[in-house]
Amino acid sequence: MARVRYQELEDTIADTFRRAGMAEEKARICARFHAEASCDGVYSHGLNRVPRFVEYLHKGLVDPKAEPVRVRQIGPVEVLDGQRGPGVLNAATATDRALELASEHGVGIVALRNTTHWMRGGAFGWRAADRGKILIAWTNTESCMPAWGATDTRVGNNPLVMAVPRAKGHVVLDMAMSQYSYGKLQTTRLKDQQLPYPGGFDAQGVLTSDPGAIEASRRILPTGFWKGSGLTILLDILAAVLSEGLATHQIDQLDQGSCTGCSQIFIAFDPERLGSGEHMQEIVDGMAEYVNGSDPVDPAGPVTYPGQNTLRTRQNHLEHGVEVDDGIWQEVRELAGQAGDA
Amino acid sequence: MARVRYQELEDTIADTFRRAGMAEEKARICARFHAEASCDGVYSHGLNRVPRFVEYLHKGLVDPKAEPVRVRQIGPVEVLDGQRGPGVLNAATATDRALELASEHGVGIVALRNTTHWMRGGAFGWRAADRGKILIAWTNTESCMPAWGATDTRVGNNPLVMAVPRAKGHVVLDMAMSQYSYGKLQTTRLKDQQLPYPGGFDAQGVLTSDPGAIEASRRILPTGFWKGSGLTILLDILAAVLSEGLATHQIDQLDQGSCTGCSQIFIAFDPERLGSGEHMQEIVDGMAEYVNGSDPVDPAGPVTYPGQNTLRTRQNHLEHGVEVDDGIWQEVRELAGQAGDA
Repeated sequence: MARVRYQELEDTIADTFRRAGMAEEKARICARFHAEASCDGVYSHGLNRVPRFVEYLHKGLVDPKAEPVRVRQIGPVEVLDGQRGPGVLNAATATDRALELASEHGVGIVALRNTTHWMRGGAFGWRAADRGKILIAWTNTESCMPAWGATDTRVGNNPLVMAVPRAKGHVVLDMAMSQYSYGKLQTTRLKDQQLPYPGGFDAQGVLTSDPGAIEASRRILPTGFWKGSGLTILLDILAAVLSEGLATHQIDQLDQGSCTGCSQIFIAFDPERLGSGEHMQEIVDGMAEYVNGSDPVDPAGPVTYPGQNTLRTRQNHLEHGVEVDDGIWQEVRELAGQAGDA
Repeated sequence: MARVRYQELEDTIADTFRRAGMAEEKARICARFHAEASCDGVYSHGLNRVPRFVEYLHKGLVDPKAEPVRVRQIGPVEVLDGQRGPGVLNAATATDRALELASEHGVGIVALRNTTHWMRGGAFGWRAADRGKILIAWTNTESCMPAWGATDTRVGNNPLVMAVPRAKGHVVLDMAMSQYSYGKLQTTRLKDQQLPYPGGFDAQGVLTSDPGAIEASRRILPTGFWKGSGLTILLDILAAVLSEGLATHQIDQLDQGSCTGCSQIFIAFDPERLGSGEHMQEIVDGMAEYVNGSDPVDPAGPVTYPGQNTLRTRQNHLEHGVEVDDGIWQEVRELAGQAGDA
């Protein structure tokens, strides 16, 4: 692990995207999302994801020039076609449009279809909260885990994001519907460790904390067993129905890479427009105090609400540099044309 | 276990509610929700819950005469005050109003505050789907489990409902944010069995499948460990913020029985109004076929989507009578004034 100044990280990533065919401004925005993900400690969808995004640009799975097109608007509900443009840009556009609609109607809903990987979903929650808005958003994905009671992978992990603004630090949840990501399985296996809690079934159908056994069986566990399995199915069909886009079973048929062709929902509320802004701060501060005041299992640390630890990581990285994996950082510098500097 | 004809079940429950002070029509509707819960196999919030609801009526925790009052409407968003009326009636009113608003605006949102226990949340999902609408709804509750990393109970189990209509059988998810309910722990303990998967921590902080040990420690597990803990916190504050009602930490202070004073959200979509009705049937049928076609762990049974088993149970109970616990059935008959008939 090395430390890289935030700005250097963002600039380098932007260079890789430009060299892969993205226009200046779009490369800059995409780079910011990736750099901020690493800065917030979400390494899987930050720097570490850059080589694959560059590969997708080269393969034409993501069209760097495509922009979302409005299909229809009915009151506060708008349907956009992402035209397989960069998922981060499409999702940012959808978020911003949902916020606009919310300012007008109290609620704003954008259903985005035919888009590509949005990288770190939580980014759109932070974005909305920074603008004083509430956001509920989710995406469907290709399948990556078995439905409950099945052995073959037919449901996605369909990340769900919920964000509520708070002056003292937003509350932001960003959760996928698998108990662990395949990335987490891999890093745990490479460290020769066991998962802290069971993460799937092995080939014999026994619940296990051994990451390698789960990678081999691909029987990764839905979060909360049958519960996450059910929730991920509903998130999938809701996204596809409301956007008139593809559901997991159709994305599987496309088979064009991670999340290519997926459907996403962005539901924004404007507390000011709804007249509940002041009440909101009371509620959220009260919750934070209550949860933080829990008796902790670990005497060292307070019990936290979603998003609380993110701000600490962000502050640390902005002060001392963002933690990066040496090998991946070198790979990305080469993609940025900085190989000679190494 | 005995079997009771559906109509006899509903009529008997209606009698108990009338005798506890509810008007004829309201008693009938409340009884239908309870009887239908048992008929669908959700015994915990059907017949089994009747004695407690009657007790709440007698204690004045639920006001049988109160009706929801509109606090405000902004576009497709309406805020209702439930005035601590019967939670089932308040939630049914909120659902119906959300469906109306959705017919007009594409989406309709009702935020209901100051209400009481809605019993089986899934009922409102089935209700919406029967009318061809999509529903996302949730409630907050008093605290009943520790946040992740805590030992004392400070978060609710905040049930979440999602429903999508389908001609061949609706897709309806009804999940609480604890891995198991306390009711499940109790029935498992009484049968001297272990939970199928770990359900909490014992007093020593060890993950366990022993229901009695979890009842004693009250360290019931959030569904998916840290994930359900985060999700339940967000559902809580969203419900309280949008309804300008109480959050879990405030409901705890009230301490007036299960869910008294809680906040609820009802988000309805009208697929016809949004022009996506036909697409919806394709998506949902495609999902059902895909999930049902999974390789099952149990060769005997197909892998199912949420709601699929409910219809089978309902059909069985309508044909052969609803399964009831003998002792509770006798208790409810006595509450209905039928003791002499026994």
